[in-house]
Amino acid sequence: MERILTMERVRATYRIETPLDVHAAAESLAGEQSSGTFVEVPGEDEALRNRFRARVEGVTELDASESPALPGSRPPGTNFRRADVTISWSVENFGYNLPTLVSTLQGNLYELAQFSGLKLMDFEVPPSFADRFRGPAFGVVGTRRLTGVEGRPLIGTIIKPSVGLSPEQTAGFVGELAEAGVDFIKDDELMADPPHSPFGERVSAVMDVLRRHADRTGKRVMYAFNISGELEAMHSHYDMIVKAEGTCAMVSINSVGLSAVKAVCDRGQLAVHGHRNGWGMLNRHPLLGIDFRAYQKLWRLAGVDQIHVNGIANKFWEPDDSVVHSIESCLQPFLDGFSVLPVVSSGQWGGQAPETWRRTQTVDLLYMAGGGIMAHPDGPAGGVRALRQAWEAAVTGVSLNEAARSHPELAKSIAKFGEKR
Amino acid sequence: MERILTMERVRATYRIETPLDVHAAAESLAGEQSSGTFVEVPGEDEALRNRFRARVEGVTELDASESPALPGSRPPGTNFRRADVTISWSVENFGYNLPTLVSTLQGNLYELAQFSGLKLMDFEVPPSFADRFRGPAFGVVGTRRLTGVEGRPLIGTIIKPSVGLSPEQTAGFVGELAEAGVDFIKDDELMADPPHSPFGERVSAVMDVLRRHADRTGKRVMYAFNISGELEAMHSHYDMIVKAEGTCAMVSINSVGLSAVKAVCDRGQLAVHGHRNGWGMLNRHPLLGIDFRAYQKLWRLAGVDQIHVNGIANKFWEPDDSVVHSIESCLQPFLDGFSVLPVVSSGQWGGQAPETWRRTQTVDLLYMAGGGIMAHPDGPAGGVRALRQAWEAAVTGVSLNEAARSHPELAKSIAKFGEKR
Repeated sequence: MERILTMERVRATYRIETPLDVHAAAESLAGEQSSGTFVEVPGEDEALRNRFRARVEGVTELDASESPALPGSRPPGTNFRRADVTISWSVENFGYNLPTLVSTLQGNLYELAQFSGLKLMDFEVPPSFADRFRGPAFGVVGTRRLTGVEGRPLIGTIIKPSVGLSPEQTAGFVGELAEAGVDFIKDDELMADPPHSPFGERVSAVMDVLRRHADRTGKRVMYAFNISGELEAMHSHYDMIVKAEGTCAMVSINSVGLSAVKAVCDRGQLAVHGHRNGWGMLNRHPLLGIDFRAYQKLWRLAGVDQIHVNGIANKFWEPDDSVVHSIESCLQPFLDGFSVLPVVSSGQWGGQAPETWRRTQTVDLLYMAGGGIMAHPDGPAGGVRALRQAWEAAVTGVSLNEAARSHPELAKSIAKFGEKR
Repeated sequence: MERILTMERVRATYRIETPLDVHAAAESLAGEQSSGTFVEVPGEDEALRNRFRARVEGVTELDASESPALPGSRPPGTNFRRADVTISWSVENFGYNLPTLVSTLQGNLYELAQFSGLKLMDFEVPPSFADRFRGPAFGVVGTRRLTGVEGRPLIGTIIKPSVGLSPEQTAGFVGELAEAGVDFIKDDELMADPPHSPFGERVSAVMDVLRRHADRTGKRVMYAFNISGELEAMHSHYDMIVKAEGTCAMVSINSVGLSAVKAVCDRGQLAVHGHRNGWGMLNRHPLLGIDFRAYQKLWRLAGVDQIHVNGIANKFWEPDDSVVHSIESCLQPFLDGFSVLPVVSSGQWGGQAPETWRRTQTVDLLYMAGGGIMAHPDGPAGGVRALRQAWEAAVTGVSLNEAARSHPELAKSIAKFGEKR
């Protein structure tokens, strides 16, 4: 094993901006993230350094800027060079330890004065990671199996208002939404176990409705209960979902953090819905943070089954190209599998189905709409039908306006939501 | 309790930049983080909304910019207004749940197109949080008690090289550093439980040396073993430290994440050393992410006893003003206590002691030096002595050059490191 470890390497690509020569800057990154300190110290002998030092594997110089993207770089100047650089580390440096992998890939390097910009774009791990990490227990196939939905996107929605409903009120909406034909429902990320909706009571009320619905119709609606919280509470809430025959737990992955999310995923009895709230902080700046391609790999290693990607023409800041890139990242096999289901959301109502299909050519999506379902003129049932009609039209190459002629629910969606943007 | 909860509020201050009127932008933030969706939906009744909606408590308009700090805001334009805005939420919205508090304070809001910049600057929680969270089990007083150091900063150092040393080699250095009189030693954040230094073997080898040192001298050197990893491993590694009579566990707080860090802190048998690697990603941009004042409060709520703040004239990008602000944030009482010890590091050698003292007027610091101790011309013992001499001079108002006349170790430090910057 020692032999394998010393030969296997993790590779990461960064987009950097630096007032220095880009090759020198890349070397300083590699040094800091393996054995750097500000003076040579006795004991750092050459053999050790060669075995454990990070290597610069490639540098592709890009454009330059006259002003720095971030403050604090040294020396000052008017030429900030940009480049994509690839660095590699021996797996021996950290072993199979996700938080320490993260500290290596994304640790102190954002603070280095050698950079005026730095973003982790992507990383690759060797195949041996598949022996040490199971990855998502459900992913695309498992989520489809749990819900019985094949050949089209799962249609999902969110309980609104985000906060304030009692367990009984929530269950009331859930019943209505299940009747409407929705495949998936989730708690809001702002609501986990508050005094007005204690977790256990909510599970009990909601699953009561969904079990009866399943008995009557054969359809198992997936409900993602937000278990985000302290570790013990998350475990006990997970148990409650399992016991009530639920199929999914939701976690705010950034807020809960990697080690606890992995502990939840490791249990493997429920699909884990990864809500990425807080993501904008990590990604919105083009030269700071982490690209979604790298981000989603970390969570697939942890075992998250479903992960948010925003949607085409979303209500947030994110451009369509970025959304498409995120969906494609999720659908790319990782370690020969580690399948994760992209969760499309934010301002969706069906109008975005044709463009989503055109650019991604996939129906392996959990397609979420809040207002787009709840505020449909015919009520939620009309909203769900309209979404399915929009997707069917998109996949068969029929325009939405054409499809609307024979699909009144879609026609009403277009009339109500089509002018919004 | 319900009554108390509905009266108590959490308040947060953000620095925002927006193409909109700053008041309107603040209202949209409050809406998104309590009950927002893109259309009014049935069920969002007025009474619920009033009880649970976030409130804009204050808006202080600042300057404006002709170009946006971050991409993607709408509408486009050439006037991006900046303001400090204060928002409040009823505790009833989330209960006492740290990850959900984080999702509320720092969730989707960074993605809102209404903002071209947004940073969480500070937050306040009501006194009832002190009943539900213990906070740091050790903090300043506890760390001093465990190490027996009073009246001056604790002098600490880091094992270098960061990666590659065997447990025996590490223990060899530890022996030398203990002899040198150091109060505190830590693992590097890049090194937790790798194949070349299995955690248990390192604890055993290091604690063997430190126990013998304590028996001989009465001085208990604190060693922060890096337990960052999967949850189960962290617990078993924690047990190993306790069993070997160690006093401290280190966690890479950003990489491990809030829920698992809290689970570690909750055990309360060891001081928890919070390494903030990755912090640059969250803070380096002036209008994105989170200010240290807010950040350190989250970790004090979780129970971290020691937290990194960089140092004056550090080797990273961070300006001195920011470092001073961080130290002051740590020393400010929170919930009438929740004491946390600021860990000063990065390029420190003693030369920064006068300025650190002048600006913070505190010796409640863990003052870390790597090369500044290890590379001292007289060896580590000289390095530690020089650091203590520098601090003694600083506190008594004697200049370093004057102190160096009667303190040869300090004189050698000045000669070796004084020209570095």
